[in-house]
Amino acid sequence: MQATAEFQVVPIGAGVSVRAEVTRVVEILKAYPFVVETHASGTNIEGELDDILTAVQNVHTALHAEGTVRLVSYLKLETRTDKAPTLAGKRL
Amino acid sequence: MQATAEFQVVPIGAGVSVRAEVTRVVEILKAYPFVVETHASGTNIEGELDDILTAVQNVHTALHAEGTVRLVSYLKLETRTDKAPTLAGKRL
Amino acid sequence: MQATAEFQVVPIGAGVSVRAEVTRVVEILKAYPFVVETHASGTNIEGELDDILTAVQNVHTALHAEGTVRLVSYLKLETRTDKAPTLAGKRL
Amino acid sequence: MQATAEFQVVPIGAGVSVRAEVTRVVEILKAYPFVVETHASGTNIEGELDDILTAVQNVHTALHAEGTVRLVSYLKLETRTDKAPTLAGKRL
Repeated sequence: MQATAEFQVVPIGAGVSVRAEVTRVVEILKAYPFVVETHASGTNIEGELDDILTAVQNVHTALHAEGTVRLVSYLKLETRTDKAPTLAGKRL
Repeated sequence: MQATAEFQVVPIGAGVSVRAEVTRVVEILKAYPFVVETHASGTNIEGELDDILTAVQNVHTALHAEGTVRLVSYLKLETRTDKAPTLAGKRL
Repeated sequence: MQATAEFQVVPIGAGVSVRAEVTRVVEILKAYPFVVETHASGTNIEGELDDILTAVQNVHTALHAEGTVRLVSYLKLETRTDKAPTLAGKRL
Repeated sequence: MQATAEFQVVPIGAGVSVRAEVTRVVEILKAYPFVVETHASGTNIEGELDDILTAVQNVHTALHAEGTVRLVSYLKLETRTDKAPTLAGKRL
């Protein structure tokens, strides 16, 4: 099932700048066959729902393995049956 | 990896009342070995991260199979390596 | 206009524990004529929409004045015209 | 206090397409002295915190006045004291 998503990761207690972690998240996402669009408040994703959920798990696993102690992530998922959801179709 | 989560599902175009869909979501979540706490704005979950992500996929699949045309869900995930995250530990 | 809301505050770079800040947020919210229900993933609020928005601004102002350098907050707002939205009416 | 924000509006029970409402939201936001950046999953905003909160209230009021019965909105707010937060500064 194809889905569109928005994903944001917030390391807790990792310092005021979180740019290194955010860069790493985008790198992980780009290893999947997703359409990936970064913006100032998160990353939009278009891909298979199960791949997106696997990628989210990999992000948590990878950031913890690389030293992040506490991690909150926010995932918005959208699916529909009347047509394939796409990022392009959601833009104004 | 154990996680705590909050999950909210919003059917789009399904009518002003979404109680039936929300009730169904909680029913699906309770079939997993989770701690499940419903509240006025979503459902809090404690369980294995991969089980939570599988449950989220099952919610999307089940609601679409039962007639929901468009579905947006919001998942907040929290993991940490210094101790096991629990819902009980996050309450004030 | 009456609204229901969910509010979560995440201090960035303030340490792995954010309990002090969360406790302060709830204290600020309770000074308003709101119904306030804390749960493991945020605080649910019932009150006038403009009061809720004023309270959110006061939370940002107060936490920064008390030393928080960077603050992300997540506010979900719900309003409806067919009946007064209440936290009690949103519980399963 | 300057803030960056992300705002998403979801009309409930208004039909499977919500494009008309989303277009109206962006029109309301652009009447303020904000930096406004729409993307596939919401609208990013840079401006004064109190203006952003006023705009959010105006969105709820306007959409209800124009016929939306039930409305959920999601607002993410970010403020910081070490430098002025900007959308440009948050892009990778």
